Formats: sequence, C-alpha cells, structure tokens
Amino acid sequence: DAMDVLQRRNPPIQPLLAIVQVLLSKNKMLCCVGTLEILSTLKIVEEVLKLNEDPRVHGIYLHLPSAALTTRVLETLKPEKDIDGISDLNIGRLVRGDLSKGFVSPLASAVLDVLEKHDAPLEGKTVLLVGGEGRVGSALQCLIERSGMVMQSDAVVLLGGGNIDILPTCFRPGAAVIHCEPTLESGIAELIVITVKMSLWIFNVVRSCSRWIQGQQYRPWRLRSLKLQPLTPVPSDIEISRAQIPKPVNQLAEEVGLLPEELEAYGRSKAKVCLSLLDRLHTQPDGKYVLVAGITPTPLGEGKSTVTIGLVQALSAHLSLNSFACLRQPSQGPTFGVKGGAAGGGYAQVIPMEEFNLHLTGDIHAITAANNLVAAAIDARMLHEATQSDKALFNRLVPSVNGVRKFSPIQFSRLQRLGIDKTNPASLTPEEVTSFVRLDLDPSKITWQRVVDTNDRFLRKITVGQANTEKGQIRETGFDIAVASEIMAILALADSLEDMKNRLARMVVGTSRSGQPVTTEDLGVSGALTVLMKDAIKPTLMQTLEGTPVFVHAGPFANIAHGNSSVLADKLALKLVGRDGFVVTEAGFGADIGMEKFFNIKCRASGLRPNVVVLVATIRALKMHGGGPNVSAGAPLPKEYIDENLSLVAAGCHSNLKKQIQIAHLFGIPVVVALNVFKTDTQAEIDLVCEIAKGCGASDAVPCNHWAQGGRGSIKLAQAVNEAASRPSNFQFLYNIEMPIADKIRTIAQKVYGADDIELSPAAKDKIDYYNQQGYGLLPICMAKTHLSLSHMPDKKGAPTGFVLPIRDVRASIGAGFIYPLVGTMSTMPGLPTRPCFYDIDLDPVTGEITGLF
Amino acid sequence: DAMDVLQRRNPPIQPLLAIVQVLLSKNKMLCCVGTLEILSTLKIVEEVLKLNEDPRVHGIYLHLPSAALTTRVLETLKPEKDIDGISDLNIGRLVRGDLSKGFVSPLASAVLDVLEKHDAPLEGKTVLLVGGEGRVGSALQCLIERSGMVMQSDAVVLLGGGNIDILPTCFRPGAAVIHCEPTLESGIAELIVITVKMSLWIFNVVRSCSRWIQGQQYRPWRLRSLKLQPLTPVPSDIEISRAQIPKPVNQLAEEVGLLPEELEAYGRSKAKVCLSLLDRLHTQPDGKYVLVAGITPTPLGEGKSTVTIGLVQALSAHLSLNSFACLRQPSQGPTFGVKGGAAGGGYAQVIPMEEFNLHLTGDIHAITAANNLVAAAIDARMLHEATQSDKALFNRLVPSVNGVRKFSPIQFSRLQRLGIDKTNPASLTPEEVTSFVRLDLDPSKITWQRVVDTNDRFLRKITVGQANTEKGQIRETGFDIAVASEIMAILALADSLEDMKNRLARMVVGTSRSGQPVTTEDLGVSGALTVLMKDAIKPTLMQTLEGTPVFVHAGPFANIAHGNSSVLADKLALKLVGRDGFVVTEAGFGADIGMEKFFNIKCRASGLRPNVVVLVATIRALKMHGGGPNVSAGAPLPKEYIDENLSLVAAGCHSNLKKQIQIAHLFGIPVVVALNVFKTDTQAEIDLVCEIAKGCGASDAVPCNHWAQGGRGSIKLAQAVNEAASRPSNFQFLYNIEMPIADKIRTIAQKVYGADDIELSPAAKDKIDYYNQQGYGLLPICMAKTHLSLSHMPDKKGAPTGFVLPIRDVRASIGAGFIYPLVGTMSTMPGLPTRPCFYDIDLDPVTGEITGLF
Repeated sequence: DAMDVLQRRNPPIQPLLAIVQVLLSKNKMLCCVGTLEILSTLKIVEEVLKLNEDPRVHGIYLHLPSAALTTRVLETLKPEKDIDGISDLNIGRLVRGDLSKGFVSPLASAVLDVLEKHDAPLEGKTVLLVGGEGRVGSALQCLIERSGMVMQSDAVVLLGGGNIDILPTCFRPGAAVIHCEPTLESGIAELIVITVKMSLWIFNVVRSCSRWIQGQQYRPWRLRSLKLQPLTPVPSDIEISRAQIPKPVNQLAEEVGLLPEELEAYGRSKAKVCLSLLDRLHTQPDGKYVLVAGITPTPLGEGKSTVTIGLVQALSAHLSLNSFACLRQPSQGPTFGVKGGAAGGGYAQVIPMEEFNLHLTGDIHAITAANNLVAAAIDARMLHEATQSDKALFNRLVPSVNGVRKFSPIQFSRLQRLGIDKTNPASLTPEEVTSFVRLDLDPSKITWQRVVDTNDRFLRKITVGQANTEKGQIRETGFDIAVASEIMAILALADSLEDMKNRLARMVVGTSRSGQPVTTEDLGVSGALTVLMKDAIKPTLMQTLEGTPVFVHAGPFANIAHGNSSVLADKLALKLVGRDGFVVTEAGFGADIGMEKFFNIKCRASGLRPNVVVLVATIRALKMHGGGPNVSAGAPLPKEYIDENLSLVAAGCHSNLKKQIQIAHLFGIPVVVALNVFKTDTQAEIDLVCEIAKGCGASDAVPCNHWAQGGRGSIKLAQAVNEAASRPSNFQFLYNIEMPIADKIRTIAQKVYGADDIELSPAAKDKIDYYNQQGYGLLPICMAKTHLSLSHMPDKKGAPTGFVLPIRDVRASIGAGFIYPLVGTMSTMPGLPTRPCFYDIDLDPVTGEITGLF
Repeated sequence: DAMDVLQRRNPPIQPLLAIVQVLLSKNKMLCCVGTLEILSTLKIVEEVLKLNEDPRVHGIYLHLPSAALTTRVLETLKPEKDIDGISDLNIGRLVRGDLSKGFVSPLASAVLDVLEKHDAPLEGKTVLLVGGEGRVGSALQCLIERSGMVMQSDAVVLLGGGNIDILPTCFRPGAAVIHCEPTLESGIAELIVITVKMSLWIFNVVRSCSRWIQGQQYRPWRLRSLKLQPLTPVPSDIEISRAQIPKPVNQLAEEVGLLPEELEAYGRSKAKVCLSLLDRLHTQPDGKYVLVAGITPTPLGEGKSTVTIGLVQALSAHLSLNSFACLRQPSQGPTFGVKGGAAGGGYAQVIPMEEFNLHLTGDIHAITAANNLVAAAIDARMLHEATQSDKALFNRLVPSVNGVRKFSPIQFSRLQRLGIDKTNPASLTPEEVTSFVRLDLDPSKITWQRVVDTNDRFLRKITVGQANTEKGQIRETGFDIAVASEIMAILALADSLEDMKNRLARMVVGTSRSGQPVTTEDLGVSGALTVLMKDAIKPTLMQTLEGTPVFVHAGPFANIAHGNSSVLADKLALKLVGRDGFVVTEAGFGADIGMEKFFNIKCRASGLRPNVVVLVATIRALKMHGGGPNVSAGAPLPKEYIDENLSLVAAGCHSNLKKQIQIAHLFGIPVVVALNVFKTDTQAEIDLVCEIAKGCGASDAVPCNHWAQGGRGSIKLAQAVNEAASRPSNFQFLYNIEMPIADKIRTIAQKVYGADDIELSPAAKDKIDYYNQQGYGLLPICMAKTHLSLSHMPDKKGAPTGFVLPIRDVRASIGAGFIYPLVGTMSTMPGLPTRPCFYDIDLDPVTGEITGLF
C-alpha cells in the first residue's frame, strides 16, 4: 500500500532492497565457521560498502548466520539503509525512544504485535525471552519494556533458530510461546505461528525510500549560517577571511540538499558538484534568477562582486531564503600582478579567499593544458606535413597495427567532412589520401594562440620554431592569458558534457591555404581535450563569510568573450534553491556589455529566463558620469569625489544610470538599483540617487552596506529583489538570431550603446562575408568594446550620443558559438607593474598562514 | 592513576576534556527556554563541531540543560569523544553489551557502584527509577538490567535535578534512595551521597586519550585488499583499471593509520596527506626502505614501475606486511604524445590510472604557474629597469603608502645580501639605491626558462618581447617541459615547508652584468612561489589494483635533475608502515644514474638510509647487452629477442647486470635482482639469469609475473626483499661532499660508469671556477648523461671500459642544491610524433568513461 502510494507519486522511483546472503551448505558452514568468519567478513564488508554507496538501494538486509554478523560488518552497514534495525545507532535510537529517524527491527515489532493480540493489555504482564542475546533480541527487549511488560513468564518468546529446550516450569500454563526465526520463506511455528514475511522488511524499505525522496523535495534549507561580528575600521580582506572558520564543505553540501555521491571534495572547503544533480532534480521547479550588472564603471571598479555576495548573505543568512551566488573564477595573473581580489571584499567575501584566488580546483590549469595541447598539435602537424610525403603521412596517421590498418573514430569525422564515405583505408584514392592527410594550414591565418595564466607581457608577440630541430618552420604568434582561451568561453556556455565535447570539436584554429576552416577535430585532438576538461565542467562549491553557498565556475574574458559565469553553475543552483529560492549571478563590465551578452548569448545558450536585474552604482561613478574630473588607478581621488556634490550626482543619474536602466528594460526585465555605499557618501547624495533611480523606472533603489556590515548591510536590497522577483517579467531577446551579422551588430550599437550607426572596415566586411559563406551567420554577437564608456571612446562618460561605432575587424569563436566584432584594440595579455603585489605575498612556514594577499 | 601511567608513557600527550556550558542565569533560562532552544542549538552545534575536529581534545562533556541537548546537538557530537556516553551510538553499544569501543555514562556507572555496595548481590532485587527519561536514564536502565535487578522498589534512584516527590509506598522501608545530579562541583545528597566528581568523567577522558594513542601505535594494518581475477590475454591497462572499483580514499587512509584531519580528499580516489603526520609519528620507528632501480634499459623501458607496484601488492595483499609504494607523478606531455603510462601496467597498476595520468591533484600545474611567474617577473623587471631612472624605480618599488615608505620583508633580504644595514628607505645613499633597484640582469646570461606541461617542440627556441609594448626588449629564450623546472627538483628534495621556502628563495635565475647571481628573492617573488606551492608539497595518496597504498609525489627529470620521487612522500610512508613495514620507491633510468643520484643526492638531503636495492632486469635488455641487435621503439623486435638464446643472456648478465650489482654494493646495500618476465622468455633463460645474478653477489634473484598476475606473481620477490631487508646494511656515500667539484665528477665517472677519466671543456672549467667562487662548491653532483649506456655513448652496451667521459658544460640548480655536468646534449622539451596518441583518446559523454588512454 505504502509502496503503491510512493510509486504513484514518484513514478521513476523503485524502492530496492538488497539482501546479502552467504551461499554455503549448512554442513560446510558448521565445519569451517572459523575460516568463514575471517574470509567472509572481508567479502561481506565489500558488498555492504558497495550497497551503502549505491543510490538505487534503499534498504540492506543481512540474511547471514550470526557468526557472520561481526562487529566490523555491522559497523560498515549504513544506518540509513539498515531496515532490519540492527546497527548500534538504530538500537540506540530505539532505546532513547526516538523512532523518527531510525528503523526498528521488523521481527521484534511483529513479535510485539502477536503479544498484543494474545495478552493485551500488556502492562504488568510478564514475558520470558529465550535466546535473545543478539541485536534483534536487544530490540525486542526494548519494545517489551516500552510496552510495560515485565521480563517473566506470562508469555515466552523464542528468538533464534535451532532447538532450544525450555523447562515447562519457566512459564505459566497457557502462556503464549512465540518461536520465531527470521527467514525469507516462511516462519517456523510452534504453538503460535509467526509468518515473518519479507513484507515486514519491505515496509521499512518503503519507509527508507520515502525518506530518501523526502530528502530531495523542495524545502527551505536548514542552513547553519556563520555569525559575523564586523570590526571598525574594516580589516584587510585576508584578515577577515582568515578570522572566519568555514563550515566543512560536505556539511554545507548536505544543508543545501546535495547527496554525498554528488560531491567531490577538494580539501575541506571546496568541492566539485556532479552534473547528475540535474537529472535527479529535473522535476524540481527552478528558483528565481537574478543578474547583477553595473553602470559604466570608473577604472577602479564599482563592486559588483561584493554586491552579489552581500545580497546572498542577506537573502540566506538574514531572510532565511534559499540563495546561491554564482561567481567567476579569477585568473591568477592579476592575483600576483595588481592588487584586487575577485572573491568580494570586506564583510562580503567568499572564503577561504586564498583558495578562491589561487588554484581553486584546477579548472583554469585544465584549460591551459587543453589550449596548449591544441597549439602543440598545430605546429607539430605543420612540421610533419612540410617534411613528409602524402604516403609517409598516411602510413603514420593510419598505421598498420598487427597488419591491420584502421581509421580511428575521430578520423572518420574528418573523412565525413571531406565527403569521403569509405571505411577501408586501402580504398582511398591518391587525391582522397592527400585531402585527408593535409590540413594544409596557412601559417599566416592561424588564429589559435597559446596561453599562460600569468601576466607575461613578453609573450604578447613571439617567434616560435627557432631551434634546428624545427627545420626553419618559424612563425610569429603569441600567448594570451589563460582565461581568454576559447575553451574558457566554451566551459561557460556548455550545458552538458556532450555539449562541451561537441563545442570543443567545432573550434576553428585557422584556415587552410584553400580557405577552408580547420578544426580541432581535424587535428585529431578534440577527444583528448574533453578528457582534459572532464572535471573542469563540474562547478565548485564554496561559501560566503556567513556560510551561504556559492558556485565558482568559469571566468571568460568580458571583451573578446561574454564575461559571465557558467550556464551549468546557474542551472545546478536554480535546482538546488528550488521554487522560492534565488540564484544571483554576475556579468562582467557595465550593463551595456556584460548584461547585453548575458541576455543575448548566455540566456540563448541556456534557455534560462532571468527575473530581476540588480544594477550596481556608486556615488563615485555617478559623479564621474555627471561631469566630475578624471578618475584613475593609483592617483588620489579629486575632491569632488570626497565632498558632497549633489549636482554631479544628479547629472550622472540622469545620464548613465538612466540609460543602463533603459537597456535592461529593452529586455523586459525589472531593475533594482543597488547603491554600493562608500564612507564618504552623504545621506543627501544617497537619497538623491534612490529618488532619481525610481523616477527613471527602477522597481526600487536602495543603499547597500555589505562591505562594512556583511549581509545585514544588504537586507534592504534583498527585500527589494524579493519584491521585484515576485512581479511578472516579460523577457525578450534584443535581436532575432536570423538577422544578418551586420544588422545584429547595428542593433546592439544603436539600441544599447546609443550610436547613430556602425561603420565596418573593409577587413570586417570581408570577414563577415567569409563567415556567412562558412555558415556561421546564425551565431549571436559578442562585442569587444571598452567598458569605460557606453561608446567606443573611453573618455566619453554619461550617455554619449551622435557617434558612429567603428568596427575594426570581426572574429569568431565557433566552438563557443559567437562572432566578436572588434571595436578598438583589445589586450588579451596583461603585464606586471614595476612593483607587482607578489612583493607582499608570503607564507609563514610554521603556521601555514598566507600574508599580503589583498 | 591511569592518567599518570598514560603521561609517563607518552610525555607530550595531555588528555583534554572540553566542557560546553551555557552561561545563563537560571531565571533567564527559564524565561526564554523557547528562544534558547533555537538560538543556542546553532551555537552549541558550532562549538561541538570545532571540538570534534580539534585533535587536542579527547573528550567533550555537554554540561547543558536538557532542553539544550537537542537531537541536532547530540547527533553532532562525535561518538569517539562522547565520554558522557549519551550519543545514540554509545547507548546502542551499551544495549548490545559491546563496551570495547564506546563509552558508558559515568554517572550511571557510579549509581550502579553505589547499588552494588548497598544491596549486593543485586540479582533479583528490585529498583525504582524515577525521572529516568533522558539518555543517562537509558544507560542506567541498561546497566540495572545487566546487573540482574528488576525495575521495582528495593532501591530508588532519582535521576535529574529539582525536587521530585516520591510516594513512600513506592519503595520498601530501608531501601536505598539515590538522588543524583550531574554537577561539576559536588553531588547533592539525600540519604546516600553520591559525589559525582569530575574524576568520573576524567576516567573516560583518559580512556579516550589512550584509545587515540593506541590508534597511533605501530600495528599491522587491517587492510582490506581488493581481489584480482586476472584475465588471459591481459586486457589493456585502462580496461583493467576501470574493471576494479577503488576503495574510497578516506577508507584506505583510515586503514593505514591516517587521522581524518590529516587527509584532504580530492574527489573519491585521491587525497593529499598533511605533513603534520611527521610530527605526530615522530617517535615511530621508520620501516624498511627499498629502492627499485634497473639495469641499463632498452629504449622500450624494462618495467621498474610495474615491478614497484607488483612488489607492494605482494607485500601488503599477499604477505600481510605493511607497505607503501612511492611513485613519481608523470608529465602530461607523454600522456598525449607517445603511448606508455606511468601508473604501471597490466595487473600491477595504480588506479584509477586516468586520474594518475591526468591532472592528479594539480602539483605540476602549480609548478608551471610558479615557474612562469618567475619568468614573467624577470622580463618585466628588465623592461622596467631599461625604461626608468633609479629614482622612478625606487619610488615604485618602495612606494609611499599614506605618506609612509617601507621596505617589505623580502626587500630587507635583498638589502642584507647587498650589505646595506638600513631600515629607513630615505636613508639610502644614491649608490645604495642604485644597487638596490637594479638587478642589472645580463640578457645573455639568463638561465631561467618558461615551462609548459605539453610536448611543444616549437617552443624549444623562441624570441620574446616582439610586441610594440615591450619597446624592443626582445631576446631569445625557450620553454622546457614542466617537470624539467628546478621547482620540481625542489619539490622532490624539500623536507619541510620551511625548507621548500628557503630553496625557492635561493634559486638563481641568471647573472648580473657584473657577474653576480640574481635570485628569485632578488626579484621579490619567492614568497609568492611558496604560496603557489603550498598544497603541492603534500603527497597524494592513491592505491594499487589490490587496494594497497601508494604515494604519488613529484617527478623531476632524470637527467638534468635527479629523477626520484619526493623525500617527503618517502618520509611519511616510512612512518605509516612502521617498524616492520616497507616503503618501495623508484629511481629513474638505470642504476648508474637514478640509483647513484638516489644515494648521493636524495639520501644526502633526506638523511634516510636504504635497506635493499631491487635491480630490475629483463631477458630482452640482457640479450641486448650480451651483443644482440639494436632494439628501437616502433620497429619489430629481432628474432634473437623472441627465441631462446642462452649465450646472449649469459653475456648480458656478466656485463651490465654484474656491473650494476657492483655499483649498488659500492654504497653497501644488498641487491635483489627482479627479473621482469615476458611471455617469450623461456624457463632456461630465466633460471640462467637467476643463477648468474646470485653468482655476481646478489642476495637473491627471482622471476616476477606481476604484469600478468598482479601481486601473486611477485610473492617470491616480496619474500626475497623481506629476507634481504633483515640483514644489516652498511650504507655509505660514494664521495665526500667537500671534495672539489671536478673530483666528485671524476669519482662518479670512474667508479660508477667505468671511465678511465673525465675531460672538462674550457666552458665547463670556467663554470666550475665560477661556482667555486660563488660558494657552490659543496653541492652534490647530478650527472646529465644518456641512460642508454653506462658510458656517454648510447650505442655502447654491456659494461664499456677504456673511455674518457667528456664534460661539455656544467650548470647548477642552486635552489634544488646540485651541480649538473652535461655529458652530451639533453632535450628538455619532447615533441609530438605524426600521430600522437591523442588520436585514440576520447570520452563517452553519457557514461563519462575514458577510452584509448594506453
């Protein structure tokens, strides 16, 4: 019955009972009981361990001779699956009378039912228990005592098999004598028959399965938030981070509803989360989806990351709403170059911040390895093609192994693209062999660069192949910073392992001399890339200073790529927070860039629909847009930014802030303005921003003090976001993907940037023609534009108009799936300053503590 | 008393009891019991979690009002520290009567003692228990029942505080009435006084502490080995690996005596082990230390890794002797280049082999990041020095922050080396400023190369700095494969975090124009390097196919570096296996190179003394040394190697095998020859090798069949090693470290290689003079010589004599701590073949299974 109900409600779930038996004849068992104990304990433990881990099994019944039920076996058995109620923990729970979590021995329960029928009321009656030394006996004793019976002889229960002689004097005439033996077939009866059917156990299995299902239902998390006691003045980021002890990551995972088998811990404070979660929770409704974007920033940045973290701290730790932040993994380049962590700051941080800012779980290293394997394959292939005949190449590429020549699967893909429908290598014509073995890459048209995750400016432009061994095949190329790799953009946009694999295979690395695109699959390397990236595709779970969950995953460049954290992290988080929860994700740069790409590229790839945009503003940036003097890193701030200046603030609000709100409204999404408050801001300035923002159509506008106060400082923002998310949104893309490439670019330039038109260079026009011809015309657009102005001119603040956006060149990331027009020059490799911040970074070898990291 | 004994035996151990109390006045507690329950549960849980994790605390006593002892609190309490016996698990154990592991409530035990004194014998007496609902009550009920008393009224026990009215009719006149309340001060007495002193609890704390100490004593492991069922023919390495489910790594860790807090899991099958283990087990005697070396190999390799793994599988899984294998982490370059895994092969492998061969726990990635940060720092510094005045450099290197200029600690180290004893930046003379700010690196004398962990031959020689932004500062340089980085050699030789930090700071990256060595500390980057390497220094725990433990750590090149796994992995393993256990570690290349460096470099750095050398030989290699035709990769084996040929075998044994045995004896270490059997080997050939080897002084010589059979195929080897290790060894270094550099080189050439003399090139002589002048004369020698011959001529097989060893150049790794003379040219960057093995490597996106990896 219970099973029926369970299955009706959860069709794909099938309660499963695993029975462990030792198949030995009785004689044999008696003969070698000593050996049995040693040998089979190991075997049984092994089996039980497997069943413990198997998520399909909801109950384990050890149908074993009592000699085989050694302490080691019983300690191995997971109490959650011990539907026979024989583990110490379950017996302890029974003794204490807490039946809500554990399991009671079904056999003992059955005995009590019989006693009830025969001798009710039981209170004060006596019972004699014979052979009750084992675990079931313990359970039965407990139940008998709880029933009020006394351990004497109004009734007799014989536990255990075999013949036990009982003196008739031990019990009063007419007493119930219950003889029971756990058996899978039928009970053995004396005087009163107890048919101990499997159904007794099945009830517990169903209960176990129900508990498992219940554990996966949506519920407000029981999150143990970490208490913050903010200090004044606010200490350095690493001091704040170090002062808070993070929860063990497996505990955090349990709190947010992850199963142990979905977690791969990396040390104590980081864990990768398996994508199988998406299957398990596919019927779970998604939570609310919140994007944090910003107004056009000063070169100092306006704190989108801290707002994101402060917001989830407020939502989860203060309003008890399930929430997840999804952040990008930072490059190590800036970590050792110019100060500025990416883990948030002040009392709104991800901890431990040094783990966040260093290797994390190795995803960027995996990208570097994959990216550079492609590069090595390109140059080696060009060398081999330049120095070998078609025949030699073919013999090496399709070697005879034990006399048999075979194409590998990846070579079949290339044959298919070449239109060669043959499976026998010997049957290729000489022309087919040539086209198969020669990628014929044009050295001047290789677009693939190598990468390092270091600010190494001397690698921007280099010449490779100068050793004698490379036989004069020198060429000019360069290194980018690792996060600029197309593989990073793919990681951020893939929505499954298969999708990532397909994208990795589609990447175009250059053009052949005959003008054909050459892919990583042509190079035979795309399978290896997937293998290198198999762990990187799993998002990393960390926590904020207040113990709320964070996913860190991917971190593509915000100019030549789309600058957003991963689709998969957002999807996993939306399932975990559930219907009434929130996922807060961040887009790089200002809303004109990061948010536009979030909507047009990321949401197109993911199919997800956002509910609210949080637009981060600062008084500082607003004053700049209102006409304040230049702000630059390193130089002291002019006094306009320190003293109250309402007119600059108002002018900034009416230009840039207003325009950015309008951009979000183009996509049909409500906007909450989050004013990131600095200590020099005056109340009048703060009030003015909030008032004008609301006047410009923002659903709400609130000041935030997360940096100094943690989540408590962002409660108003959290309430405003919660309120805005409850309203219906009407999301729409800015352009139809089927529009011609130039029209898509023009739409963004005019509607988002406020340009009059675009102007394509001849090179850009040629590229667009080429992409159309190659069938890449249906890709979305990823503008590579300065983030310091809505226009292409970094010094034009506010909301510039009356300009024509020049498109210098157009490039494509075919694997990632976008066309990127270049507006101006983009540096993809930062440099180190004269005094990089590594001068201050050190580690105490005794305590292991890191100093000087931000 | 127990405490005294404990402390006498284990002086540094101090049993520690943690008491959790809520400090509220009684009134307040009564007023807000509702709030208390919610608020303090979280706080108490937090405290208990901390105490659970704290290895110094051996017992936790929750001195809390019962309202605060919520299920959540009690479930948080670690049963191993629950010295009050109130957790469900401990109560369950009591019910079952298993008192060997858990704790019994001291209060309940005390009550029973009183009853014993008052009413003995207890059998059949009755007792009334009032107020016994809580956990202590449950425990007491159990104890009373076990004593044979009946729950009636010969005696009365009042549990719990406060006043409880008892009707006099409830107990017989003269009955003992025991009123007890757990208190830290003194018991409250009625009729019979129980002074429930802390000493009751202290007894359990001492017991807990004793158990903890016992858990750390040497004992044969209770290792659950994984069963192997070898198939014929032997499947591919990855098929064998995938067919075996590894034990969860935390279970393996527990089996080998690691504490949970010493483990940092990386997924389910890998974990880093903390160095704090060395402190905890510092009084533990080391196990036996076994080195696996080989005769001079063919280019195909003779299977040292499989012998190493087969040997530990035999020792642990078949002879039940504690044993650890210590292996090197392989570079990813070969993984994707030329077939050949480093995780062993056949039925002697480390699993999961794909984890072993891919990113592992990111150590090589960390080395790459650290190495390339140094490179970026070098070029950026040269650019900044070339384009800035002394004053500008000084102002940037020692900037004024809020009006204050300060040197950073790392800058003080440079000042000290320059002999400038000043702390105030303003007080430096212009000359001092110049010498401080100008490293003045000579671009032609930079020895530091960049690295990637990819076989990228086009990076062997490159020109960097060609972008306009680098202002013409171009120079020629190159990339090495990552494992050739000096940082890898340091990782392998460091014996603590502090030692690693010091070595990283000493690394010389080039020479100034005035001839001074420039270090990473001069560049200000050495603290950051330590931070990047802080996790890499912890060895990674994995397991063999039979579930025995393996450390994977470091993997320096065997020519320009010393080719051995890490000192720290060996040290940790020697403590974990304990007195009668074995640590089997492997040295790269033939014994003339890897073993010589193991003894003279690694043992000198570690202070460890080996017990046995296992010398791996194959019939194939012996035939080659006996005069057989050329063996080369890719080409089919000549028939001499397939058919029986006793004369070639005998000649090979009497030349190369004999010489390699003699080399080991130079160091005073007994040798066991392990003949790695191939299926083409005949019994007569096998017998002949074993006979001659013993004749040449080997302690024993045995055939090994681990590849086809796993540990079972290496049982004879394991027995021979066990036997040889029980004999006294008489270890000595080959040369005194204080000998002049040239004499040390000559000693190795003559005694090990069999050369008549050495011949130093002029360049080599100059370098030796320079190193002497810089004080590097006391470093050991790390020969960079071909591994394909005992001489410098790869085609001279057997045991060549009558040659002079030419020393082309001499270089130094100052951080790693050795001088490396170059004998011939060494490639430090492999290339990709025409068909790299990545063509076959793929991943099934549905099952996640990797195919084609070896």
